[in-house]
Amino acid sequence: MKKLILLFALITAANGFSQIDRVEPPNWWIGFEDNSLQLLVHGENMGNYEPSIDHEGVKIEKTHKADSPNYLFIDVIISENAKAGTFDIVFEDSEGDAQTYEYELKERNRPEEHFIGFDNTDAIYLITPDRFANGDTSNDTDASLNEKTIDRADDYARHGGDIRGIIDHLDYIDEMGFTAIWSSPLLINDMKSGSYHGYAITDFYRVDPRFGSLEEYKELVEKTREKDIKIIMDQVANHSGVEHWWMKDLPFDDWVNYQQRFEDGEEIVYSNHRRTTNQDLYASEYDKKRMNDGWFVRTMPDLNQRNPFMAEYIIQNSIWWIETLGLGGIRQDTYPYPDKEFMGEWAGAIMKEYPNFNIVGEEWSSNPLLIRYWQDGVDNGYDSNLRSTMDFAMQTNIVQGLNEDESWGTGLIKLYDGLANDFAYASPEDILLFPDNHDMSRIYTQLKEDVPNTKMALSYILVLPRIVQIYYGTEILMDDTAKPGDHGLIRTEFPGGWSDSESNAFTGEGLSSEEKDMQNFLKTLLNYRKNSQAIQNGKTKHFAPEAGTYLISRSSGDETVVLILNKNEGNTQLELDRFSELGLENAQLRNVITGETLKWDDKLELPARGAYFLSTKLN
Amino acid sequence: MKKLILLFALITAANGFSQIDRVEPPNWWIGFEDNSLQLLVHGENMGNYEPSIDHEGVKIEKTHKADSPNYLFIDVIISENAKAGTFDIVFEDSEGDAQTYEYELKERNRPEEHFIGFDNTDAIYLITPDRFANGDTSNDTDASLNEKTIDRADDYARHGGDIRGIIDHLDYIDEMGFTAIWSSPLLINDMKSGSYHGYAITDFYRVDPRFGSLEEYKELVEKTREKDIKIIMDQVANHSGVEHWWMKDLPFDDWVNYQQRFEDGEEIVYSNHRRTTNQDLYASEYDKKRMNDGWFVRTMPDLNQRNPFMAEYIIQNSIWWIETLGLGGIRQDTYPYPDKEFMGEWAGAIMKEYPNFNIVGEEWSSNPLLIRYWQDGVDNGYDSNLRSTMDFAMQTNIVQGLNEDESWGTGLIKLYDGLANDFAYASPEDILLFPDNHDMSRIYTQLKEDVPNTKMALSYILVLPRIVQIYYGTEILMDDTAKPGDHGLIRTEFPGGWSDSESNAFTGEGLSSEEKDMQNFLKTLLNYRKNSQAIQNGKTKHFAPEAGTYLISRSSGDETVVLILNKNEGNTQLELDRFSELGLENAQLRNVITGETLKWDDKLELPARGAYFLSTKLN
Repeated sequence: MKKLILLFALITAANGFSQIDRVEPPNWWIGFEDNSLQLLVHGENMGNYEPSIDHEGVKIEKTHKADSPNYLFIDVIISENAKAGTFDIVFEDSEGDAQTYEYELKERNRPEEHFIGFDNTDAIYLITPDRFANGDTSNDTDASLNEKTIDRADDYARHGGDIRGIIDHLDYIDEMGFTAIWSSPLLINDMKSGSYHGYAITDFYRVDPRFGSLEEYKELVEKTREKDIKIIMDQVANHSGVEHWWMKDLPFDDWVNYQQRFEDGEEIVYSNHRRTTNQDLYASEYDKKRMNDGWFVRTMPDLNQRNPFMAEYIIQNSIWWIETLGLGGIRQDTYPYPDKEFMGEWAGAIMKEYPNFNIVGEEWSSNPLLIRYWQDGVDNGYDSNLRSTMDFAMQTNIVQGLNEDESWGTGLIKLYDGLANDFAYASPEDILLFPDNHDMSRIYTQLKEDVPNTKMALSYILVLPRIVQIYYGTEILMDDTAKPGDHGLIRTEFPGGWSDSESNAFTGEGLSSEEKDMQNFLKTLLNYRKNSQAIQNGKTKHFAPEAGTYLISRSSGDETVVLILNKNEGNTQLELDRFSELGLENAQLRNVITGETLKWDDKLELPARGAYFLSTKLN
Repeated sequence: MKKLILLFALITAANGFSQIDRVEPPNWWIGFEDNSLQLLVHGENMGNYEPSIDHEGVKIEKTHKADSPNYLFIDVIISENAKAGTFDIVFEDSEGDAQTYEYELKERNRPEEHFIGFDNTDAIYLITPDRFANGDTSNDTDASLNEKTIDRADDYARHGGDIRGIIDHLDYIDEMGFTAIWSSPLLINDMKSGSYHGYAITDFYRVDPRFGSLEEYKELVEKTREKDIKIIMDQVANHSGVEHWWMKDLPFDDWVNYQQRFEDGEEIVYSNHRRTTNQDLYASEYDKKRMNDGWFVRTMPDLNQRNPFMAEYIIQNSIWWIETLGLGGIRQDTYPYPDKEFMGEWAGAIMKEYPNFNIVGEEWSSNPLLIRYWQDGVDNGYDSNLRSTMDFAMQTNIVQGLNEDESWGTGLIKLYDGLANDFAYASPEDILLFPDNHDMSRIYTQLKEDVPNTKMALSYILVLPRIVQIYYGTEILMDDTAKPGDHGLIRTEFPGGWSDSESNAFTGEGLSSEEKDMQNFLKTLLNYRKNSQAIQNGKTKHFAPEAGTYLISRSSGDETVVLILNKNEGNTQLELDRFSELGLENAQLRNVITGETLKWDDKLELPARGAYFLSTKLN
């Protein structure tokens, strides 16, 4: 296997006859705020070579040998007068041998302020690309890779979904009302098994050929841009896949944590996953080290971001992808696991180059103190530079509150009290909220396959001052009820994404009436939200739940949106006196779902359990 | 009834022949930071009188009529050269009638910095005085009051406990290791029923005669001071009892909230108890008003602290009691219910006069964001001036964590994660923690009458960086298991407090071996804590629970305290390698409960489920 990899590396090296098999980043740009660039050069004995560059405005500041003789790190300064173009980096060793490597500095495609990150005006469609749509069957398998086959009967094997599948269905995504797409990682996971999920990256500069090519990734971004849809890239700074190319020849003795144990074939130390050690005043050094340095799982070596070359590598890699693709955001995996000082520097470096960009970090915690902690703008002695965090707290509240019976302290009050916590956040509207995601049980399953509760959850999420994320398939009630929480099952094939799918969610063909109804429900709300100033930037007001109903309003100018969640079976009369401060007396409102209009009078009839989404916008 | 009250008022008026029945505060002092004093004068038609004072350094700044003709409010300035002593306030009306009232300005007894508030070096004994000990049977009943009898068979009637009962047992409290006493209110509750609990005060300047006299209250403070025990007064700014004297003749139309409804005999609007409205960015005006202005219950009128005379009245009342008694702290009831701006001013006014004082506010919430919010020192746009809040969050975590089975996310991890939240508090060590209190089910009942779990809860609380409060009877496993949460039952008579008690916790007579064992356990720990620099001011370190055990240490200088909670039945071997950073290798430690010493070696034997409290202090 090792031989095969080396052979492959040689074949793909930029200069056919060189012993240099990689220079990373593979290219760079002129015109960044930060004028430094650190190149990683890999090739047999490259540590013994001295590099030189003869190109206007470009100079080598310093070179660094690594612990492995096969690496050289070159610090380059790109001055303001540097010109875009290609040039040779010439490497010479003490015995007079010379190698050259052609390197390119590009012009930047668009001004930095045009990289607009996702924000609370957006609704993000989260896709597991292997399971969404197989647009190109010719790339389903790749004999050069470790996992050679697809097996659609196996939830943990590859199913063939790809970038082309997403491109093919952009109209659907757009028409549903989504304004951004977050696909789980599309970079190569050349793992021996379970590689479909994408979080075990084995080359941070290469698209997985089973998902498509870099050109197709670029095409995806270009085509979504035409529809004002942003592409959010899922990145992983904490770990790589164990089959990452450098695991066979690690540059430094401290490139990954617990490296010696790995090299000695000893048992690895795993993370204790006690994420509170990042904040805890009393955490032991033992637990902190276990948390941050332990491996996430056996197949994912934990990268050591305290190694300054690793730190620079990760930062440059992120910027390379933003600039190459023209991204509209990054979702950073397992945010609390790497060294947190590094994560702050990483996010800061990106935001310095792209001031309008956005990054959301995954901290899986329902503790609002932690959601608060990681978000930029809080005075807590830690400079996170992170605009968006994830609202696992509110997600939990919604599920609990809807599943529970109503009482003074249970039920809808969980939603109300949860939202009241917004006072503690630096910017609640920059927090990402979701009914579920690719790592948790489907919302329909979490809500015990109760359609009215599912509609209440979705409409509540869509009306809040939050960035919204919906996982593919939620719109057609996809579930994992057979084995709740099973990752493979959660990531079921999207119907219509394969030529032999039994039904087709893109066309509606073969969907049940419940599935169609939910798809229409979500489509209507998403499209309303897309153009609603009230939801995007309006004032929020809510009223403590009473007698099984909970009312929240958003308003801006003459647009007022009122969402009423009603947990009562049968016809419910809602006295409106209590809500007089909304100023809706005698106003006409439209039920956005049914299209009916009604007058805001003394009472409102709520004929059934469910979500009532009303608007003063009558059409 | 009204006639009786008026008669009583006339009899007790300071000047026998005056129509003035009260001037409040009943006296004041020279030498406060704030040199202003506002007197409330009540008596028939007193609003028509003009007051004058002829006393060096004392001058009337302004007088205010009220809506009722029977009130006059007098703003007095007490300048630096004012002398202590008595003087007449002369009142004249336009028809030449004159009234005089002798008023006293006292010297202050002790310098302001000697009013030392309770802090994290303290362990507070919380007492429900009616139920602790009946030291004076002669005051059990009072024919002049509404509730005339005691009925020890009725959990909601008076039982006869009193201040003398506390004084009689100060040796017990001291020997147990407590350093402060918080008694629930001792002021008069002249209510028709259920007056035993003390929270329906009907005269903010009068001790309930069934508890004793002002002189006995003073004696209690003096005698505790000799033992270095602080007295914490339980005060109520939010409401009075409905039988409060002023409810028959309210000074202003807005003296209490929903006053018109009360006067018209209409149904009162009650608080919605949605305390989050104090912080919630999105709370409706409707809910905010309901929360803050609604009455707590039918028998407790909600005071309107937005009326500036009410505000001043409450502030002066608090200062009067601190100065009169020489208090060591205030516990303020129902903290989030009054107007929060007022509460900030109230606490600020007290802390300005007594910079070393302490106040703890009752916010019954297990949400750390709220515990954080109310504490002084947090930059959240609200100036609370409140040094201590209550740790309902940690109390909840402890009970849940001990009751639950151990798993990755349940059990002891609830304690560990809860403590990790300390990073968010301005000063965790100023937060009050307790296993239970007078309003919640007894800890022994909450922990399903499990003795090892109860010992784990108590020892954990005692070792944390917190102010500790223990409710009377916890030391002898008092329970409310027959009717969990029943207030009357929670506040059961303390055995030995009545001459016919079946057992006697003061002497140990008749206690079961389990009760004696728990009493000794708590006594040992409290007395250790009392002299422990490690617990009072030491560094805290804890280790993520593993395999049913959780270790926390406190250390200062050469004293290290190690508490291990062990949830495993049978003999458990704890590998000590993980804790090497404690620096205890080969150290001798004493098991503080058993007195045995042991060597900190490779392993520690934990022979049974329970709390292991070890110390490097060998005697």
